[in-house]
Amino acid sequence: MALRNKIFVGAYCMSISIKRESSLTFNNNVSFCVGSGRMGLSLQNIFVKQLELVQKEIGFSHIRCHGLFHEDMSIYHEYKDENGNDHVEYNFTYLDMVLDIYKKAGVRPFIELGFMPKALASGDQTVFYWESNVTPPKSYEKWTDLVKATLSHIVERCGDEAYSYPVEVWNEPNLPGFWKDADMDEYFKLYKVTAEAVKSVGDFRVGGPAICGVDDERWMREFLKFVETENAPLDFITRHHYTTYQPEIKGRYKYQKLHEIEYGFDQLKKTREIVDSFEKVKGKEIHLTEFNTSYDPLCVIHDTNLNAAYVAMLLSRLGDEHASYSYWTLGDIFEEQGVPYSEFHGGFGLVNNSLIPKPTFWTFAFYSKLKGKCVYRSDDSVIVYDGKKYRGVLWNLGDERQLSFNMEDEENGRYCLITKTVDEETCNPLKIWHDMGEERFFTEEEASVVRAGAYPLIKTEKLDSASFDINIKTNGVVYFELYKAELKGDRGYCYEKAVQKFSD
Amino acid sequence: MALRNKIFVGAYCMSISIKRESSLTFNNNVSFCVGSGRMGLSLQNIFVKQLELVQKEIGFSHIRCHGLFHEDMSIYHEYKDENGNDHVEYNFTYLDMVLDIYKKAGVRPFIELGFMPKALASGDQTVFYWESNVTPPKSYEKWTDLVKATLSHIVERCGDEAYSYPVEVWNEPNLPGFWKDADMDEYFKLYKVTAEAVKSVGDFRVGGPAICGVDDERWMREFLKFVETENAPLDFITRHHYTTYQPEIKGRYKYQKLHEIEYGFDQLKKTREIVDSFEKVKGKEIHLTEFNTSYDPLCVIHDTNLNAAYVAMLLSRLGDEHASYSYWTLGDIFEEQGVPYSEFHGGFGLVNNSLIPKPTFWTFAFYSKLKGKCVYRSDDSVIVYDGKKYRGVLWNLGDERQLSFNMEDEENGRYCLITKTVDEETCNPLKIWHDMGEERFFTEEEASVVRAGAYPLIKTEKLDSASFDINIKTNGVVYFELYKAELKGDRGYCYEKAVQKFSD
Amino acid sequence: MALRNKIFVGAYCMSISIKRESSLTFNNNVSFCVGSGRMGLSLQNIFVKQLELVQKEIGFSHIRCHGLFHEDMSIYHEYKDENGNDHVEYNFTYLDMVLDIYKKAGVRPFIELGFMPKALASGDQTVFYWESNVTPPKSYEKWTDLVKATLSHIVERCGDEAYSYPVEVWNEPNLPGFWKDADMDEYFKLYKVTAEAVKSVGDFRVGGPAICGVDDERWMREFLKFVETENAPLDFITRHHYTTYQPEIKGRYKYQKLHEIEYGFDQLKKTREIVDSFEKVKGKEIHLTEFNTSYDPLCVIHDTNLNAAYVAMLLSRLGDEHASYSYWTLGDIFEEQGVPYSEFHGGFGLVNNSLIPKPTFWTFAFYSKLKGKCVYRSDDSVIVYDGKKYRGVLWNLGDERQLSFNMEDEENGRYCLITKTVDEETCNPLKIWHDMGEERFFTEEEASVVRAGAYPLIKTEKLDSASFDINIKTNGVVYFELYKAELKGDRGYCYEKAVQKFSD
Amino acid sequence: MALRNKIFVGAYCMSISIKRESSLTFNNNVSFCVGSGRMGLSLQNIFVKQLELVQKEIGFSHIRCHGLFHEDMSIYHEYKDENGNDHVEYNFTYLDMVLDIYKKAGVRPFIELGFMPKALASGDQTVFYWESNVTPPKSYEKWTDLVKATLSHIVERCGDEAYSYPVEVWNEPNLPGFWKDADMDEYFKLYKVTAEAVKSVGDFRVGGPAICGVDDERWMREFLKFVETENAPLDFITRHHYTTYQPEIKGRYKYQKLHEIEYGFDQLKKTREIVDSFEKVKGKEIHLTEFNTSYDPLCVIHDTNLNAAYVAMLLSRLGDEHASYSYWTLGDIFEEQGVPYSEFHGGFGLVNNSLIPKPTFWTFAFYSKLKGKCVYRSDDSVIVYDGKKYRGVLWNLGDERQLSFNMEDEENGRYCLITKTVDEETCNPLKIWHDMGEERFFTEEEASVVRAGAYPLIKTEKLDSASFDINIKTNGVVYFELYKAELKGDRGYCYEKAVQKFSD
Repeated sequence: MALRNKIFVGAYCMSISIKRESSLTFNNNVSFCVGSGRMGLSLQNIFVKQLELVQKEIGFSHIRCHGLFHEDMSIYHEYKDENGNDHVEYNFTYLDMVLDIYKKAGVRPFIELGFMPKALASGDQTVFYWESNVTPPKSYEKWTDLVKATLSHIVERCGDEAYSYPVEVWNEPNLPGFWKDADMDEYFKLYKVTAEAVKSVGDFRVGGPAICGVDDERWMREFLKFVETENAPLDFITRHHYTTYQPEIKGRYKYQKLHEIEYGFDQLKKTREIVDSFEKVKGKEIHLTEFNTSYDPLCVIHDTNLNAAYVAMLLSRLGDEHASYSYWTLGDIFEEQGVPYSEFHGGFGLVNNSLIPKPTFWTFAFYSKLKGKCVYRSDDSVIVYDGKKYRGVLWNLGDERQLSFNMEDEENGRYCLITKTVDEETCNPLKIWHDMGEERFFTEEEASVVRAGAYPLIKTEKLDSASFDINIKTNGVVYFELYKAELKGDRGYCYEKAVQKFSD
Repeated sequence: MALRNKIFVGAYCMSISIKRESSLTFNNNVSFCVGSGRMGLSLQNIFVKQLELVQKEIGFSHIRCHGLFHEDMSIYHEYKDENGNDHVEYNFTYLDMVLDIYKKAGVRPFIELGFMPKALASGDQTVFYWESNVTPPKSYEKWTDLVKATLSHIVERCGDEAYSYPVEVWNEPNLPGFWKDADMDEYFKLYKVTAEAVKSVGDFRVGGPAICGVDDERWMREFLKFVETENAPLDFITRHHYTTYQPEIKGRYKYQKLHEIEYGFDQLKKTREIVDSFEKVKGKEIHLTEFNTSYDPLCVIHDTNLNAAYVAMLLSRLGDEHASYSYWTLGDIFEEQGVPYSEFHGGFGLVNNSLIPKPTFWTFAFYSKLKGKCVYRSDDSVIVYDGKKYRGVLWNLGDERQLSFNMEDEENGRYCLITKTVDEETCNPLKIWHDMGEERFFTEEEASVVRAGAYPLIKTEKLDSASFDINIKTNGVVYFELYKAELKGDRGYCYEKAVQKFSD
Repeated sequence: MALRNKIFVGAYCMSISIKRESSLTFNNNVSFCVGSGRMGLSLQNIFVKQLELVQKEIGFSHIRCHGLFHEDMSIYHEYKDENGNDHVEYNFTYLDMVLDIYKKAGVRPFIELGFMPKALASGDQTVFYWESNVTPPKSYEKWTDLVKATLSHIVERCGDEAYSYPVEVWNEPNLPGFWKDADMDEYFKLYKVTAEAVKSVGDFRVGGPAICGVDDERWMREFLKFVETENAPLDFITRHHYTTYQPEIKGRYKYQKLHEIEYGFDQLKKTREIVDSFEKVKGKEIHLTEFNTSYDPLCVIHDTNLNAAYVAMLLSRLGDEHASYSYWTLGDIFEEQGVPYSEFHGGFGLVNNSLIPKPTFWTFAFYSKLKGKCVYRSDDSVIVYDGKKYRGVLWNLGDERQLSFNMEDEENGRYCLITKTVDEETCNPLKIWHDMGEERFFTEEEASVVRAGAYPLIKTEKLDSASFDINIKTNGVVYFELYKAELKGDRGYCYEKAVQKFSD
Repeated sequence: MALRNKIFVGAYCMSISIKRESSLTFNNNVSFCVGSGRMGLSLQNIFVKQLELVQKEIGFSHIRCHGLFHEDMSIYHEYKDENGNDHVEYNFTYLDMVLDIYKKAGVRPFIELGFMPKALASGDQTVFYWESNVTPPKSYEKWTDLVKATLSHIVERCGDEAYSYPVEVWNEPNLPGFWKDADMDEYFKLYKVTAEAVKSVGDFRVGGPAICGVDDERWMREFLKFVETENAPLDFITRHHYTTYQPEIKGRYKYQKLHEIEYGFDQLKKTREIVDSFEKVKGKEIHLTEFNTSYDPLCVIHDTNLNAAYVAMLLSRLGDEHASYSYWTLGDIFEEQGVPYSEFHGGFGLVNNSLIPKPTFWTFAFYSKLKGKCVYRSDDSVIVYDGKKYRGVLWNLGDERQLSFNMEDEENGRYCLITKTVDEETCNPLKIWHDMGEERFFTEEEASVVRAGAYPLIKTEKLDSASFDINIKTNGVVYFELYKAELKGDRGYCYEKAVQKFSD
């Protein structure tokens, strides 16, 4: 048990007493940003629908993706004129289309500058099924020209609002797969010229080093030392966060175990400490520009209720030290390891490609409602109060349990408790798909059945006081609201008389 | 128990064995027609949305309403010209709007001719909050002119398809409230001249006498005698069917008990017998142009799960003798006893005015899927088979029970069972509304919570053979599908490995 | 010429020179409010679509209608309890539906308090086809209770925003048709108790006397004297404004001549003078809570291009003295003289019942774009400049003419002139409908043809300097934009080469 | 004159007399098929909207595209299992998505089998910016397995309807760019094994050789000889048809002259003659599976009014000998020569990427309404009669002209003439875009202005007899309807009185 940290095994019941006033804090940055794969895929019809669904129920402020400069966005080009002279030209047609889609969905870009256009690359190493070039530029001048032209164009298209879009330099340069030889000095060079180019365009905020958890402490330290020494611009620090062990692989799929709870938080704490040890950046915002359980888009865990509960746990604490934590990714339109072969396939998405929300979707939807003062936090719950309603998110990584709440400051009276339950019995599209035979890609008719089974179970309870029990099954996530609900009953209406048995 | 007919009390479990071949019949005329209150209300924005929702999930073929000739449709007018001469003129603007709304929704009118335009009435007796005149015409010639002009206009607007719209003469003339003095001879006169007028326009099918269950045997007999004697056109017979006793009244609301099951069917059997005793009409179609549990739009029962289960029982048998049975009504936009004072108020609708489907909505949605050969029918179930899938509707007017099914002709193999459950725990918007404080009219935000709780619980089960159990709670309605679902699993995908506990 | 005031007859050409800086003012209150007939009709499906269309292209802030307390809104009720005691109760279901429709369309109510619920009336005089009672209340206490309950409910439903909804007491009490005997003292009494009731609910702004142009000077003077003497609350003054002479009547329709231009403005000036002669209200806002050319919903003029041009003239000047001027009405869903018999029938609407915009619709759409500093105003034009673009509305009540503009402060360069033309040749749905045979109510297919012919003709012109000519036909309204449009031409693109003749 | 064939230069007026009965034929196969670039692009959001728009106004039955087997569709894969054995697997996820999009839009695939998956290719030659492999398969067995698996999957997904989808083998093998070395024997081999594979799946219709106009006579002859000799399945013959001369190139763009009119028809006639000279295929359907004016997606002509008029001419005659002629392409989402750099760029599309219909869009929309008996055909017009209405499409490749029509068999009476005009003055989005500065990619606000200017000018005329004049400007296309339109005028309505001048 020690290994898993604080997860209760065995059924139990716990009593919790809550006051309106508290000195607790809960920084709810859940909706700040979400990831979305490759920018070119934002042009897809299904992606747009996934984004609409996510925005309707969650409402993210920003969106981050790879591949702004990938070939399919078709931005950078070189050509020879009729006299044989070389020229560069930029094509922003698809970028404009993407920006329009974002705007219509009410979301703003968290700009990641990368990868390298083939025509501008110094080598031919690529990453992903879609083969994006990850080598340094053949000319740093042409690269910074590209960066400046692109940001200038965004400003022209989106107006001054564009200066509020955070800009991040490259992605996971600490992995040799994402940056040739994981060459640290080369990255620092890239970072500095790029960050300066960004600042030259206007009042953008710029950040890095966008590393993941491999050799991360050394990278972070060296990066900050470089920034300090070289006086490179740096407005915020970025890193990634994944929480699974190495996979077991079967055919196309990966099976991974989750980290013990404190394992990951310890890593993050370390980053905070390193940052705060540098005078120049002490206390600066850290953005987790990617996080998820598994870092693999074919890891089965993403579609499960366990994932939803584990992410609920993460979301309760990540705001303590981070300005944002961007779930990677919003939808299963994603091709890093190729096009999905099957309806459910362990994709990163909150929503699958038949627009079926996964359990973790609801974890985000529930957290997005937690506005107000924090009145309770524990290892398996966050509760806030806004003056009218108590709202809480509860989760369970252990065995089924019962929680008994008592809102101490509430007088007796008629209360309504609303619960929305997501657990393996009530909201488990993966199981429905499996039972139906693991269809490769649903027809709309099939999808509509599964979709109907992928929504939380809504229940209400009328209470005579502000005390109530909530039951949570293993891997369950429960959202509740509690508020005073005086009866506005119309003249002569009697609910108890309305409800009857035939045999009465 | 005898009184309630065949309703089981006490938990039990029952085993049912089913073969593909059977000599059973089940005439599924559930989707033929639905009622909708007053025609003028079809112009309402919320009505149109209710109709769309009903059509999406159920898909009725026809729609019937009162008040084609009521003042708010503004069809019939008299005026004096500048020389003082009297003229009649017709205004079909609103009728055209209604026909357009029907057309867009994919539904056709089941035309009820009535009530009397005030300018054409011989008296001033009215019915309903909206005060529709129910006296004979002051001039039968002007009345038949009106009928002919209206039907001709419909043909002009809708084309030859219009001839397939059934035409019914008046509504419940056997009640003095709906037809002055319930004057039988006057109705017969009306019927004959009207039916002849209908036929003079073209090949319409015409029917009557549209009576309800008061003095109905005498009326039916006399009507058919009249039709035979007078050789009046008659293509089908119509009557109404309600199944509740006299109400207890509290304030605005009515509390009514349901008839024992056979009570109502006995009434209907009697009608069939009377019809078949006349040579001219023997075997002709009988249409129940209205039916419901209670005949009162403020009777609380309409919003309950009991209503859903009782209607499920009715729908399993009404097709045995009737060409259609039109639920009165599709939505709560309805004003016969005034405008509703409250979100739930016992209205007739399958859908309430915040577009929340009531339990009975799902009874219809479930039945609308029962296509194929009937392989089982009992007092609490209907099951069909279409060569690929078994589909069934089960209901429970008694105590909770378990049904065990075995599809005898199916070989062993991987099967999927889908169930959709509507019962007091899983799909009970009335309770949610009550718990929330019986709001008079929801905001969209409130409505969305209740709406989410007004959809059936979807579950699936993977089976190794075509045998399974289904549990039904009191007042529950369950829809199921069973079909062979071979695993199409992708290379390496293992569901059992995907599903895990954190503590594993 | 004199009679019609300043309308030019005979073709001519005029040169106009414009500077960026000017001391001209143009108060553009065009979008503040629009009228919509009877509140109950806001529930109609087609009304909602008309409102959506109007909001999309024009975007009004407020909407005003009659009949808040009319029977079809079903707000006020009296009943006897089981002990025979009398009670009053209110039903806000339909009011909530209307408020929801407004909210979704982004428009707020300009509340008119009236007419009298039949159950609260002292007499039985009614107005309109829909027979609304126009007699004083049988009990002023019950009336003020009703007012207070209604406003309180609106506050509860809409939140504090509700206090920004202006409240007006009754409608046209100076006409005996709208207020029994046009009894001035009785209205003043009604005004005072009502205004005080309004203020007792909260910080609403209240106004009156909502008179039209009959005996209006005397009414206005006496009303303001009363308000001053009695110290009644009064935050703004309201009156109506129509600009046609008595009609010639043929069958159902009215044919009216328009007032000379200054005729109406002289009336309005008089009102302003009277208001300003009272110390208490000097300089207060005057709202024209209704205006149009004809006051009759069957006056053919409303559908014409002449109406569009005349209204363009009105809109150029009404803001000089009025805080708002609410066009009566947005759509042809309107029943004051009965349900329309025909597709076009002279209805008040900017949009007809097949969602065809009338020429006057575009006058409003064009004016709604006039944001910025006024740089030119004349008898037939208003032009503004916002730092980037010049935007103008031009109209022509006389013979075809040509206007030559020169923007003095603009340097030479590439400019784009966009014009949108609405005149009898290019955007005249009335003519199309007439040519097609004056259909009573279109099918959607027919409507789509006419709708396509009811949009302005869009043209552009490339200029080498900021000088250009615009031609306006009789009864035409033209909108233009002029702005610098440097060529962003792509590499090798040559428009002149792209455009060719086959025979070239 | 001679060179351009039958195009009139110089203004003129011509009188045309038409009878209801005629022996003329006009095979209107205009709506049978349309092209759409690369299949993978069908997943794009804007493509889906382009398809919806095209389907709403034109309504094509089939759609044809390249790249079914291109990498981005991700269908064909090889992998090694854990034991080192090689396997093939197919991924139909994206294909299913495309089929769903087609289905929702009401269109069916015209299946083109090609190009070569890289993993299955024998060489590495590619075509297009998107680099599709055009070499023969490394294994014909694996290729036919792929074909069979794909078609079988389509049947499974779409049901028996799938057998009605025509299947074509490869694209333009007579060009070395599209088929390695334009190797004729290799293509014949491919054709035979593929066609046999197609037939082995079920009752599909299969065709080829999909050649364009290069060395086409020899290819067609040899292909048919091969088919006859080898007894290969062949249900229909396919070829392409473009009608421009070699381009002048400037920067990115191509400027091309159109062929004289008979030049292209002569080519097509030759194909028909060759086909009919083979006993086996004599009289078989010929499908032009691609046609357009220019074959280049950066040829400026596609966006012009000239293109619309020239295509109108083509559409009047192509049905004489061809079962279909598929315009290449429906929308500007297209990447064969890269992503467009500019709003208008000479793309093939009927609709551009801001959903602006081009003039040629309307040519198709107009032709799609020509249903009924042909009563007149000339070099610049086609007119049909359906018993109620005359409908015609007129075009003008020469100088402005006037046509005077007289419908001989019509009695005098009230007629309505509707015209929809597309010419350089009334419906010319290219000019508007140019005048506005040749924007690279519009904002939605800019696009909405241009879109409004991209719809035909609708006019009507009331006639007293079935005689009328229509004026057509150079490069104009005019659609008209003529029908009897008796006045249904309402009581008292007088249009002539309604229309007035202010000064009257």
